[in-house]
Amino acid sequence: MIQRLALLGVGLIGSSLVRALKEKQAVQHVVGYGRGEKNLQEALELGVIDEIATSVADAVDGADMVVVAVPLGAVKGLFAEMKGKLSENAVVTDVGSVKWSVVRDAQQVFTTVPPRLIPGHPIAGTEKSGAAASFAELYQGRRVILTPLDNRDEDALQKVTAMWELAGAEVVEMGVQHHDEVLAATSHLPHLLAYGLVDALARQDAHREIFRFAAGGFRDFSRIASSDPTMWRDIAMANRKPLLETLDQFRKELDEVESMIQDKDGDALLELFSRAKQARDEHYE
Amino acid sequence: MIQRLALLGVGLIGSSLVRALKEKQAVQHVVGYGRGEKNLQEALELGVIDEIATSVADAVDGADMVVVAVPLGAVKGLFAEMKGKLSENAVVTDVGSVKWSVVRDAQQVFTTVPPRLIPGHPIAGTEKSGAAASFAELYQGRRVILTPLDNRDEDALQKVTAMWELAGAEVVEMGVQHHDEVLAATSHLPHLLAYGLVDALARQDAHREIFRFAAGGFRDFSRIASSDPTMWRDIAMANRKPLLETLDQFRKELDEVESMIQDKDGDALLELFSRAKQARDEHYE
Repeated sequence: MIQRLALLGVGLIGSSLVRALKEKQAVQHVVGYGRGEKNLQEALELGVIDEIATSVADAVDGADMVVVAVPLGAVKGLFAEMKGKLSENAVVTDVGSVKWSVVRDAQQVFTTVPPRLIPGHPIAGTEKSGAAASFAELYQGRRVILTPLDNRDEDALQKVTAMWELAGAEVVEMGVQHHDEVLAATSHLPHLLAYGLVDALARQDAHREIFRFAAGGFRDFSRIASSDPTMWRDIAMANRKPLLETLDQFRKELDEVESMIQDKDGDALLELFSRAKQARDEHYE
Repeated sequence: MIQRLALLGVGLIGSSLVRALKEKQAVQHVVGYGRGEKNLQEALELGVIDEIATSVADAVDGADMVVVAVPLGAVKGLFAEMKGKLSENAVVTDVGSVKWSVVRDAQQVFTTVPPRLIPGHPIAGTEKSGAAASFAELYQGRRVILTPLDNRDEDALQKVTAMWELAGAEVVEMGVQHHDEVLAATSHLPHLLAYGLVDALARQDAHREIFRFAAGGFRDFSRIASSDPTMWRDIAMANRKPLLETLDQFRKELDEVESMIQDKDGDALLELFSRAKQARDEHYE
């Protein structure tokens, strides 16, 4: 049972976690800290949080679990504000989509990464934002990747693992760099492509008509372009190197596809499309 | 009321149209022609079609409405087989995603495009294929683009329009080239990108793990990579020029995005992401 959970950043991800924990009666009291006053009030009214803190220091005061759930660009500032204010038994974790930048931020603020800081990343979310969009079932059957460092405190790792499992997730451990490479390919690049395509279309003179005739496939494909731009700006900046590498691989694939079309090589194109369909159908029903 | 509808190609698109017409009691008898024996039997058992024809000539014999619903690469062959077999009052339409190639096929087979041939394209579909995946509601509230030529027979145009409206669609008329350009951007390019990304990931050694950690956004983004590869090979081949042009524009956008990440220009990236989000949110809720 978590006695006092400090939720720093009361958005979709953090609020959904807290809702799930409350449903399981696995947390006694939740203190929320965030920048949007209206969102905090809403979270309070919805019973997502029990109290609004006006500073990070107040939020973490006496907390045995601190969940950092803000865009990556804001993580370092929060670390700095909580420095020296944490209880000795406090466990800290985060939900950032890039783990290397969180580790670097912690190193810069705390000199070494505190053993009771367990970096984490729930592979879940929707294109919506804010406490009002949160729901307890978000993590049911989803995976949460933890990237504990060598100096991790085993008790802290166990507590973070137990918390996510209570929320319905399957917890997996992975190295920091490996996490960032895998996520660059499966999440960060698709977001770049979706934002890029929608922007390219929106720039055209006929864009109203173009969107009007967009089919269902386009709606699905472009859904992730509705995601929070600040969060994704931060992710792209924080995961620059793996993202540029995977983008480069994708460009090579695009070169091949373009050559096939230019050369009217329908057989090669059919082979590529079939391979892709097979790969996707293998992994999703 | 359509007396005898010849459905050439008994797939998702054609079968869904026929189901909708039957629900409205707008068609008396449907003759199906296609290559997959099992699929035809299924369509017959499901009541989608009332009769299986073993040749195009048999299928169109006495038909007052002929719907060509095959991959684009098969259209020309069907036109050749129906030449000289059509009733005088027969209206012919198709559902191809590229209109220029259908017009060219018709010119090559019939010398000039028959006035009672009205090229059409329903902006609807799913990633599924076959008669068993069809459903009467597919066209509810969706748009159907007709690209009638200057020599069109007004009665034929009216009959095709009425047929689609009965199926629940909004019918829009457009020029052939304009249609192909708009669809290249909103449908054909997204399919290329989705197929390309899934294939690029599947080629990596760690692809099983990569798909395992793919989030919900990736599932949506890549759904269209489950579409029928033959159909999409044909579309890419048939719409080569507009597709290569829109791919070129997208590459320029990707160049810009890449530069922004390389230059750590978070402001520019945020602006681009925000513009894309706004454009998408404007057009879909």
